[in-house]
Amino acid sequence: MRMSEVVTSRGNGRVRGVRELRQRKARRVRRETIIEGPTVFGEFLDAGIAPSVTLCTPDDDLTMERCATIGVEPVLVTQDVLASASDTRSPRSPVAVIPLAMPADLRPHNTLVLIDIQDPGNVGTMIRSAAALGWDVAVSGATAEIWAPKTIRSSAGTHVHTRLVHLTHPVEQARSVGLTTVATVVTGAELPGKLMGPIALLIGSEAHGLPTDIVEQSDVPVTLPMPGGTESLNAAVAASILMYTMTDLDGS
Amino acid sequence: MRMSEVVTSRGNGRVRGVRELRQRKARRVRRETIIEGPTVFGEFLDAGIAPSVTLCTPDDDLTMERCATIGVEPVLVTQDVLASASDTRSPRSPVAVIPLAMPADLRPHNTLVLIDIQDPGNVGTMIRSAAALGWDVAVSGATAEIWAPKTIRSSAGTHVHTRLVHLTHPVEQARSVGLTTVATVVTGAELPGKLMGPIALLIGSEAHGLPTDIVEQSDVPVTLPMPGGTESLNAAVAASILMYTMTDLDGS
Repeated sequence: MRMSEVVTSRGNGRVRGVRELRQRKARRVRRETIIEGPTVFGEFLDAGIAPSVTLCTPDDDLTMERCATIGVEPVLVTQDVLASASDTRSPRSPVAVIPLAMPADLRPHNTLVLIDIQDPGNVGTMIRSAAALGWDVAVSGATAEIWAPKTIRSSAGTHVHTRLVHLTHPVEQARSVGLTTVATVVTGAELPGKLMGPIALLIGSEAHGLPTDIVEQSDVPVTLPMPGGTESLNAAVAASILMYTMTDLDGS
Repeated sequence: MRMSEVVTSRGNGRVRGVRELRQRKARRVRRETIIEGPTVFGEFLDAGIAPSVTLCTPDDDLTMERCATIGVEPVLVTQDVLASASDTRSPRSPVAVIPLAMPADLRPHNTLVLIDIQDPGNVGTMIRSAAALGWDVAVSGATAEIWAPKTIRSSAGTHVHTRLVHLTHPVEQARSVGLTTVATVVTGAELPGKLMGPIALLIGSEAHGLPTDIVEQSDVPVTLPMPGGTESLNAAVAASILMYTMTDLDGS
């Protein structure tokens, strides 16, 4: 508790450096992003990813302890300054800057492929489900930015527990590493029987689903059976149920 | 297109009457809420629920046609006035007022029971999944308001496709209508075998799960198997996967 050193000005240089990362362009140029709150901060620390800047309030003993453990000096700020640096109105301490992970290569392993998923909340929720079920995640097309602060909030920091891949030609690239390509369509197909080998499960935009050419190029279409009065499911829920049905829960 | 009749003032009485419903208290007193956008508006109309006020922009031909069909006169407003009445920044036309449905009675039918679910987005997503899978939805405890505009947005208007129930003593009431009570716990249980008869699937708050006494009173605990590196799933995703695994997809 060194109250004399608490930053009270939103104009402080280090605070401005964090705030700048609310802009996508700055995230891209600097290859850094903002994370927020003790849970997400802990996930990244536990994964060995050190923050370059950590803003925390003077009462946030947990963050100060964690920073001491890894030899990093946090910047103490008021709650008002903390909020000015974050992209949420009432962030929980800390707000920190972390480097973006480099995209990984596609491998012969179950992979959820997001094509034009618009909502960062959905992208984050899908990453979280993939992490829990042991799937990799690939993004393609106009999918929302995986390293946006909102995406990371929705994943609860589970970005660090999955392998994140970028694809430009999802079906071809998936096939080239030996994945069976499974295209999610809202109606007209059914659940496939047990598929051999690892899967690339392709899921399309919330409003329009997958582009027709992607469906046509894929090996198998899949539709979730829905016995209720609607065919409407949240895209992240649909992807999560499908991953669950295609996960070998008995295997290693 | 009667541009001369377009309301341009945010202070217009009917506009203020809509805007007031952004407040929970007003929704409770008036037993009305706000819906927004063509999809949700269409769901409610198709379910036979007539809006008491419909604000739409002069270019929104679909809404004007729909209103004509049911003999309702829309109020034409500018996009600015539309936004002033809605609880989102850039609402899609129309923004309308609908009466709240009366809570239904619990029945011997698969029911998702939400206990202290905090986030209206999660509540709406769960309603949407329940509607798609043919489940009823019951709310209890400090669960977010099911008729909040954000909840309805997240359900994509599928409130009209499910039966919505309020419970004060969820386990006792579920048992009294013959439901098997299944308590979701994050760790320590497994998926139950096939259960006899309809189920009450209880799911607890995002941060804390179900209260201990609810778990102890219930017939069966359930934990989703998660082979990945985390045990963390979005609450709405967990509830949806569990409902899916417990839905008889072959039966009627």
